[in-house]
Amino acid sequence: MARRTVDVPDLVEQARAGSPRAVARLITLVENDHPALREVMAALAPHTGHAHVIGLTGSPGVGKSTSTSMLVSGLRGRGLRVGVLAVDPSSPFSGGALLGDRIRMTDHVLDPEVYIRSMASRGHLGGLSWSTPQALRVLDAAGCDVVLVETVGVGQSEVEVAGLADTTLVLLAPGMGDGVQAAKAGILEIGDVFVVNKADREGADNTVRELRHMISLGDRTEPGLWRPPVVKTIADRGEGLDDVLEALDKHRAWMDDNGELHRRRVRRARSEIEAIAVAQLRERMGVLGHGEDLATAAEQVVAGETDPYAAADRVVAAL
Amino acid sequence: MARRTVDVPDLVEQARAGSPRAVARLITLVENDHPALREVMAALAPHTGHAHVIGLTGSPGVGKSTSTSMLVSGLRGRGLRVGVLAVDPSSPFSGGALLGDRIRMTDHVLDPEVYIRSMASRGHLGGLSWSTPQALRVLDAAGCDVVLVETVGVGQSEVEVAGLADTTLVLLAPGMGDGVQAAKAGILEIGDVFVVNKADREGADNTVRELRHMISLGDRTEPGLWRPPVVKTIADRGEGLDDVLEALDKHRAWMDDNGELHRRRVRRARSEIEAIAVAQLRERMGVLGHGEDLATAAEQVVAGETDPYAAADRVVAAL
Repeated sequence: MARRTVDVPDLVEQARAGSPRAVARLITLVENDHPALREVMAALAPHTGHAHVIGLTGSPGVGKSTSTSMLVSGLRGRGLRVGVLAVDPSSPFSGGALLGDRIRMTDHVLDPEVYIRSMASRGHLGGLSWSTPQALRVLDAAGCDVVLVETVGVGQSEVEVAGLADTTLVLLAPGMGDGVQAAKAGILEIGDVFVVNKADREGADNTVRELRHMISLGDRTEPGLWRPPVVKTIADRGEGLDDVLEALDKHRAWMDDNGELHRRRVRRARSEIEAIAVAQLRERMGVLGHGEDLATAAEQVVAGETDPYAAADRVVAAL
Repeated sequence: MARRTVDVPDLVEQARAGSPRAVARLITLVENDHPALREVMAALAPHTGHAHVIGLTGSPGVGKSTSTSMLVSGLRGRGLRVGVLAVDPSSPFSGGALLGDRIRMTDHVLDPEVYIRSMASRGHLGGLSWSTPQALRVLDAAGCDVVLVETVGVGQSEVEVAGLADTTLVLLAPGMGDGVQAAKAGILEIGDVFVVNKADREGADNTVRELRHMISLGDRTEPGLWRPPVVKTIADRGEGLDDVLEALDKHRAWMDDNGELHRRRVRRARSEIEAIAVAQLRERMGVLGHGEDLATAAEQVVAGETDPYAAADRVVAAL
């Protein structure tokens, strides 16, 4: 199937002017690894860096989608343009559809200042799709003031979302993730803001207390360092929204003040560039020819004519 | 601490002459990423390719160590030189020690024709240590006829051991891993030989039947292709040993006949070279200088002066 030619400058212009259709189209180009991808990225670059990227993670059942929806409402109430990337196969709004009981985000789907997009969760970056960072750039360049990246907290994905985000919000629910469990799951290290949702349930205060205790045991309590706050919410009633927004604002202000925002973004850009470069190099290694490509080198190692280190040197030298 | 200088040719000579001490020393050099590592690998290369590498994997509790011990006895009975690499934190002979109830391999520790070595299970290659393939080369060059690589079958490690081995033996026990469970765990794809251990337990025949059924459903049943046999053992009594050895021999002969052994080894060498090359390139990318290193590129991306793809192009070009 022949791909339609894409007028990239026009599409970027439309996206920046606020066209949800243009934004959606750009993300689709990114997801499909379209030949125009590089042109798109180059055109977006000058317009990036504005959005506050907030990663939102937590185990299934803690109320991630409801909390995301609540946050979107709060941010819209401030007149902000909001992007939502849901990287979660079990999310009610993944699969690109918002049907049936996938109701929680429907408050926002008709709002032209809210871009909601689900992403496949598999990909080269492990739990997070390869295209997630690129989709983030699209939403950023399209003028989103905040982009929420929602991922399910299983395995590596919460660590990865922490790598993508300026601020990482970890969601817990009473009885599901108390302090010790959180410590075991490695969640204490990645959270900038902790939210105990379903705070009307038994044990909520206990969970908050334990979390605070575990955080206080951490090494992030010297003056000038950030001590992650623990906030209670009942997301489906909108309770606690102001406290969460305040915590996010404070974290953003703290990062701005001491250069942490810049450091995090440089780290993120660095991994992204490195991943792209390594993928390119891997591909080249396979097709070098002149007896210096991987296939030939592997034959020579098997024949005992050389060793893997010497072979790697030759492959690298021939690149 | 100053490292002792190493007389590599002498050490390799001694190892090839059958000195367990020299073999142990070489593996330690490999594990410690000693400066002489490259010289060691180059000196070993001409002597590699003899050993039949057998990967042995299975869930905790199926009797991996007992089975390894039984296999060692059988191979020694044939007068073969045997190496054992145990890549398993919970193995009775990991940690480099053989104490207390770590008794199962003690039949062999005093046998100068058996080299037993435990390896740390963490490493750059995920579940398998970075140094595992290099340690394999040491044992191969030291004249081992067979090297058994034992890993615990959790997560990715069984897939990785399959990548390292000429023949992959998957261990199961009745009631623990029936056919359907094995299929779910992705174990059917990697096994060349299946062993149902603890065959005196209830349900053993059932497990064998289910496994055979699942295997027959696979796509490996065309003429000339290998259909993995399912063998029953009671490893702590040595029962079934001959059947296992016969199955391993047949698999080896089949691989020799149709070139599969060579193909597998080339694939293995290729991944090994690629991993070494990528590690080198990653390191270089970090220190390129002249504004082409990763750190500078990342700053430019954050500033919106370039995009990650263009930055990656420049980094790659500068290598």
